Amino acid sequence: MTRKQVVIIGAGFGGITAARDVRNADVVLIDRTNHHLFQPLLYQVATAALSPTDIAWPLRTLFRSQSNVRIVMDDVVSIDRMGRAVRLQHSAPIAFDALIVAPGSRHAYFGHDEWEPFAPGLKTMADAVHLRERMLFAFEKAERDRAETGTQHHLTFVIVGGGPTGVELAGSLIEIGKKAMGPDYPHLRLEDLSIILVEAGSRILPGFDPSLSAKALVALEGMGVTVKLNHPVSAVRADGVMVGTEWIPSTNILWAAGNKASPLLNTLGVPQDANGRVKVQGDLTIPNDPWIFVIADAAHCLDPDGRPLPGIAPVAMREGRYVAHVINQELPPDQRAPFTYTDRGMLATIGRGRAIAQVGPIRASGFFAWILWCIVHIFFLIGLRNRIRVMSEWTWYYLTFKPGARLLIGDQGESGQKAKSSETSRARAA
Amino acid sequence: MTRKQVVIIGAGFGGITAARDVRNADVVLIDRTNHHLFQPLLYQVATAALSPTDIAWPLRTLFRSQSNVRIVMDDVVSIDRMGRAVRLQHSAPIAFDALIVAPGSRHAYFGHDEWEPFAPGLKTMADAVHLRERMLFAFEKAERDRAETGTQHHLTFVIVGGGPTGVELAGSLIEIGKKAMGPDYPHLRLEDLSIILVEAGSRILPGFDPSLSAKALVALEGMGVTVKLNHPVSAVRADGVMVGTEWIPSTNILWAAGNKASPLLNTLGVPQDANGRVKVQGDLTIPNDPWIFVIADAAHCLDPDGRPLPGIAPVAMREGRYVAHVINQELPPDQRAPFTYTDRGMLATIGRGRAIAQVGPIRASGFFAWILWCIVHIFFLIGLRNRIRVMSEWTWYYLTFKPGARLLIGDQGESGQKAKSSETSRARAA
Repeated sequence: MTRKQVVIIGAGFGGITAARDVRNADVVLIDRTNHHLFQPLLYQVATAALSPTDIAWPLRTLFRSQSNVRIVMDDVVSIDRMGRAVRLQHSAPIAFDALIVAPGSRHAYFGHDEWEPFAPGLKTMADAVHLRERMLFAFEKAERDRAETGTQHHLTFVIVGGGPTGVELAGSLIEIGKKAMGPDYPHLRLEDLSIILVEAGSRILPGFDPSLSAKALVALEGMGVTVKLNHPVSAVRADGVMVGTEWIPSTNILWAAGNKASPLLNTLGVPQDANGRVKVQGDLTIPNDPWIFVIADAAHCLDPDGRPLPGIAPVAMREGRYVAHVINQELPPDQRAPFTYTDRGMLATIGRGRAIAQVGPIRASGFFAWILWCIVHIFFLIGLRNRIRVMSEWTWYYLTFKPGARLLIGDQGESGQKAKSSETSRARAA
Repeated sequence: MTRKQVVIIGAGFGGITAARDVRNADVVLIDRTNHHLFQPLLYQVATAALSPTDIAWPLRTLFRSQSNVRIVMDDVVSIDRMGRAVRLQHSAPIAFDALIVAPGSRHAYFGHDEWEPFAPGLKTMADAVHLRERMLFAFEKAERDRAETGTQHHLTFVIVGGGPTGVELAGSLIEIGKKAMGPDYPHLRLEDLSIILVEAGSRILPGFDPSLSAKALVALEGMGVTVKLNHPVSAVRADGVMVGTEWIPSTNILWAAGNKASPLLNTLGVPQDANGRVKVQGDLTIPNDPWIFVIADAAHCLDPDGRPLPGIAPVAMREGRYVAHVINQELPPDQRAPFTYTDRGMLATIGRGRAIAQVGPIRASGFFAWILWCIVHIFFLIGLRNRIRVMSEWTWYYLTFKPGARLLIGDQGESGQKAKSSETSRARAA
């Protein structure tokens, strides 16, 4: 009866880890979707290598056997610190004794939100399905133009941002484009496809050791990707992008350049960094409120060297576990050891059989790093069923170069921007 | 250079069979989607048992090794008989020497097209994904209402039409609802779920022998479905449906009652039946035009007893093969033997382990018929990969009752009618 109620906002890696570990309180896990998403493989859905259901898991099934967890599918509108409740869009407010805020982040357009329609990003399943439809439509249009007029101008893909997502998208696109799509479009030529990766900084994968960045660059260029370093984007339009002083015509611009934490955090009324992340205490709480925690990529949390921890799955999971421990033990603030994160290494994949790995002093690249990447990603995929599916899809694709998920559900749109799904037309009809 | 060009409209079972069999001419296969859809299993996508990619196959991959086939993804606007060309929405007209018209059909609302937004049907992948989202949203809303107010009114599903699609949807919904969803929604009670199958005629599955209809009825009712025979629908609104003199409140109405052939057929200017199907000659051509064929559920083709052939996959495939033969042999009209169809039997599934089968004089029902149904459907699934996927999904589901495809991609909608996907919101943003 007097059991404490813990509310968790967001079912990403941090949120579900916390929900799983909190054992002696009632948990309400709120997410705007009904599934946990394995975000690190989202780019494979966007490039049609995997199906949406391969990397998503219904939350209710995930927590079926944990009777203290209740799932609420809704949008959180605001956090009422005085009233100790979160306000939802469709349901009644939910009271909390402890609150874990892990709403994730969206893309940042450096103050140019008007670029978003022309340069969509990749954060949610809906984003990935949208990118997949754009890519498949682009190939259909290019094939049509080549067949009818002998020219085409639809297959220049510009990816903005040289971090892991941008690199993975670029590598995956050039592979799928050249090896999988090529044979299916008889009029297209290999040189029709152009993948341009644009990065404002001086190297790709800046989170890695410079030697690995250099190796990744060589690998990407060897695969046929054009990489433009030191090229900040200054304008994005429906028909192209201005990088440095160069105008690149393209109707396929993908955004992988920046993150901005959820605007929900603004309703907490506490200090935030330039990306909107909450500057948390050592115990991941907000100032003067020892039972409101902010974790994952919503939190600005410093490592011992004074640098903010990166917004990656291992950090989020460790934070979720830490907070659950504090709650389970009902530790008062003065008895909490500050959160620490031990870097277990970083991996980034470039293409089939190519990756880079940085584990402690070890720097690896190439096939061995890729195998390591595969093992780690399959290991983290939740549930045996999804592991088997993803492994069999990858094996199939590795052997045949026929990715299985090249499905256009919607009707054919007129332009890249309007590539409307029939969801849209149905909504209009209704 | 003087090779003949055969244009095929529609990549259903009839269209792809014809495209595969036409060997000594150039083939242009036109479809508004990029995939062939295994429509008989579409209801399993709608009820989240299978993923969209499990039952769809990209056309370009399907015909990758057949160099005489060109794929065009577009909408056909009209057929120009005088000019011997089909006009497309996005591309230049395509000339034909022979034309195979197989555009399929949509739902018919008996002159009440205004019912469609409230009672969507199931023909395309977009339809199936839409129904799946509606179903999953309904459970989320029902759970929320039970948790907050102790009542709910979202889980009455009304299925209009007692043909195979209606029966399969009803059986699948009650199974998924009771066995798979139940444990995931702790506040819901089994009696909250109500599946009502409404049929205007005096029995379900009227295409089958009356003894099998009776057995199917007993099986459905035993599973918990309420079946209302002799109940014609007289009104459909957002909040319910009027059947006979009874008003059934429901926000989940599914339409499986009638078919209407594609309006494209009207542009041929030849006699059509009440459902819009073209009344074809014995060789499946239209009057006075021996190289324009109409097949599959676009054709009104009589069997020896003077009844029109049903719009099912085996008929469409046999017709496609017949037309390809006529074209390959370049048979003049007077040398063509009329098309004949030998009924190989009919199958309908009711639920897990329950089906009915009618093969010649044999009438079977129950588990044996269901095994037969599984074998036939897996046998017809194109491609080894999809066979393996579907088989493993079914085995998994049979053993665990955890269907794998319960994925809500969109944001949460306010009502059943507005269950908007984020595709919609993105389109608005663009």
